[in-house]
Amino acid sequence: MPYFDVASTAPLHPVARQALLAALDEGWADPARLYREGRRARMLLDAARETAAEAVGCRADELSFTSSGTRAVHTAVAGALAGRRRTGRHLVVSAVEHSSVLHAAEAHEADGGTVTEVGVDRTGRAAPEAFRAALRGDTALACLQSANHEVGTVQPVAEVAAVCRDAGVPLLVDAAQSLGWEPVAGDWSLLAASSHKWGGPAGVGLLAVRKGVRFAAPAPADERERGRAPGFENLPAIVAAAASLRAVRAEADAERKRLGALVDRIRARVPELVPDVDVVGDPVRRLPHLVTFSCLYVDGEALLGELDRAGFAVSSGSSCTSSTLTPSHVLRAMGVLSEGNVRVSLPLGVPESDVDRFLEVLPGAVRRVREHLGAPSEGVRADGPDLVLDTLGKRCPIPVIELAKVIGDVPVGSTVTVLSDDEAARLDIPAWCAMRDQEYVGERGAPDGTAYVVRRRT
Amino acid sequence: MPYFDVASTAPLHPVARQALLAALDEGWADPARLYREGRRARMLLDAARETAAEAVGCRADELSFTSSGTRAVHTAVAGALAGRRRTGRHLVVSAVEHSSVLHAAEAHEADGGTVTEVGVDRTGRAAPEAFRAALRGDTALACLQSANHEVGTVQPVAEVAAVCRDAGVPLLVDAAQSLGWEPVAGDWSLLAASSHKWGGPAGVGLLAVRKGVRFAAPAPADERERGRAPGFENLPAIVAAAASLRAVRAEADAERKRLGALVDRIRARVPELVPDVDVVGDPVRRLPHLVTFSCLYVDGEALLGELDRAGFAVSSGSSCTSSTLTPSHVLRAMGVLSEGNVRVSLPLGVPESDVDRFLEVLPGAVRRVREHLGAPSEGVRADGPDLVLDTLGKRCPIPVIELAKVIGDVPVGSTVTVLSDDEAARLDIPAWCAMRDQEYVGERGAPDGTAYVVRRRT
Repeated sequence: MPYFDVASTAPLHPVARQALLAALDEGWADPARLYREGRRARMLLDAARETAAEAVGCRADELSFTSSGTRAVHTAVAGALAGRRRTGRHLVVSAVEHSSVLHAAEAHEADGGTVTEVGVDRTGRAAPEAFRAALRGDTALACLQSANHEVGTVQPVAEVAAVCRDAGVPLLVDAAQSLGWEPVAGDWSLLAASSHKWGGPAGVGLLAVRKGVRFAAPAPADERERGRAPGFENLPAIVAAAASLRAVRAEADAERKRLGALVDRIRARVPELVPDVDVVGDPVRRLPHLVTFSCLYVDGEALLGELDRAGFAVSSGSSCTSSTLTPSHVLRAMGVLSEGNVRVSLPLGVPESDVDRFLEVLPGAVRRVREHLGAPSEGVRADGPDLVLDTLGKRCPIPVIELAKVIGDVPVGSTVTVLSDDEAARLDIPAWCAMRDQEYVGERGAPDGTAYVVRRRT
Repeated sequence: MPYFDVASTAPLHPVARQALLAALDEGWADPARLYREGRRARMLLDAARETAAEAVGCRADELSFTSSGTRAVHTAVAGALAGRRRTGRHLVVSAVEHSSVLHAAEAHEADGGTVTEVGVDRTGRAAPEAFRAALRGDTALACLQSANHEVGTVQPVAEVAAVCRDAGVPLLVDAAQSLGWEPVAGDWSLLAASSHKWGGPAGVGLLAVRKGVRFAAPAPADERERGRAPGFENLPAIVAAAASLRAVRAEADAERKRLGALVDRIRARVPELVPDVDVVGDPVRRLPHLVTFSCLYVDGEALLGELDRAGFAVSSGSSCTSSTLTPSHVLRAMGVLSEGNVRVSLPLGVPESDVDRFLEVLPGAVRRVREHLGAPSEGVRADGPDLVLDTLGKRCPIPVIELAKVIGDVPVGSTVTVLSDDEAARLDIPAWCAMRDQEYVGERGAPDGTAYVVRRRT
């Protein structure tokens, strides 16, 4: 079954598997012990740290192994904020960070700190100037991902790092999606990453804290990993994580070209094959292997089910919020269509034929979902006065489908007011207007929901 | 090489290895995903939770998988304290808990909470009545290990749980050392454990929170594992942890008898084979596989080195503080000799001949360390007035060795005052007096250290 969801988690790389098996035999003992098995474990741990630090581009003594990328982010945010508490309690994050960063920011706010979210453009890119404007005298930390996990847009990390350096503010880079491809450029202060995203085992994250960065590890204290990752070291997994990071880097140049071309093919062909599709994210400054598109009048989970039945594993919306049925915070921040969202992220070594087969089955899958939902066909015409459409209690994409069905019933210049209590409507109705060249007038509060006003233009 | 340190970490059980390999193939995907690989991962996770919950003796929905036993303890303490914050901020722990519990208590104190340590008797046992006396109206949580990790003494958990239940206080049991042998009896509220202690892989801890126990998971929020263990699930390791817990339980009855008899042999033979040895911990209410003894006039690390050269991997002092060169907090709380401390913890299936060989090499190893340190032989005699012995700057066991050399130089009834700046002297000089039937008069402050006064009795 073609697996196109490496941005969630990558299958174990053969080198990771081999290293894991070897380290289960050689590296199971406690590296803090002085007897032979302990010393051997310590040597493996030191070697893994050297390997990983080289791939990150930092010193070995700046790098700690955590139990996950999420833990690395949580510890990085808490430790940097605590270390600079005298400077202030202001935190700057981009609006499209991974949920681990945003949850850490929420915890900081709940604890009395303040947070500024830096917005992004329609490609999902956060501008260095926007970061510069957000930094203040009491800013303790800024956070920017190296590349977005949902739409693949690469962020201007080096430029933002320079802006932060000018202001004397440390920058934390969440490099989870890109570290398998390349080191993070620029003068960053802290970095977090996650082994299972590059084909290493689960259970290992990386946390780098540059020398000179003020950092106070969160309590409770622990002696392992410089006090930055409590608990017994997961040594076999650490060894496998480091070995596989080196291995995927060795393949990166060749696969960057190959997967980049396959993604270009998807970006070009999907809008030709499927009507009413919005391919989102930066077409050039992007991860090589990841592409996201949204399909008007389509329920994302239903489309994933159709693709699963057709043999394809893909993802929808935010990787960490698809189960909560709220629209992706990334797509919302970009201001693009969220309904019928599909994220394709290709594994290393994926056969070209799998991608072609995906392009074959996609149009039928979208069509079946649209038919099931009763999406409008083109050219409905009628006339009448302003109209109010009550879709309260109906989940996305139904409000947009209903709107599309009746827009032709009002005269050009008249309005359709859609009453909806689905949060996704706030994003998808304006996006539909943009795609259909209708005028989005705005929203206002309404009993039990929100009223979205659309004026017929064509 | 005979490995006698499973209380630090156990070698991977064959069942764990087998399950890990299978789950690397079947359970690498994200269990939150709806496609086939994700659903398969979810089924494996659910099955592992059922298996582990059965072994713990709780409901599956009460059990979360954490990234380590230390994390399970930290989360349990923080979550239970936060959940009962309205009741108060008083925490009760035994004085011989694992460092993860004590570090969590330190963090609570640093955050403005209060902590009461319940003392233990000379066997390391915390009395239920002592717990009852420590509980107050504002006590939010009490913590007691199921069995001590350094001396093997089994704690009266069921009785303490009943005392806590009477007082309406939840009890957290750190079951790290005993869960592979049996479920924890009694009406406990929370439980923590660690996979690598029973032969499962590193990177997996268990956290059980009984229904009805007030619990507020520490921030930042995360959707995995009921919000109690942030980060991507380490599914292959979780599957292996659950499978190996079931496997070691199946062997427990037979191995309990066999290892129990081998430990009895060590307990009986060591004092016969080695002069001036104190075997510590409860001789009956103990873990089957663990025994600890201390050797007068011996440096623990030097003895471990001798035993390592002889082919035996054993541990010394507290498993988590041996690198800090401070005496074990457990031995200190028990008020027993700490110098020359050796902990032997036998793996499942250990051959009897390995234990016999250990008993053969131990006397020579102790003798060599004593000779190297210049430990006194018996029967030194002389007479003179009161004496002051300056051992400032000398590390344990030197102060005790010097004391033993000069005690015969003063008349019966006169004193030797030992000046020392080594913390271990506070424990070991009184212990030496008890073993040698000399009178320990007491200690007083002195420039650059402490003055310990000993009166010659015989």
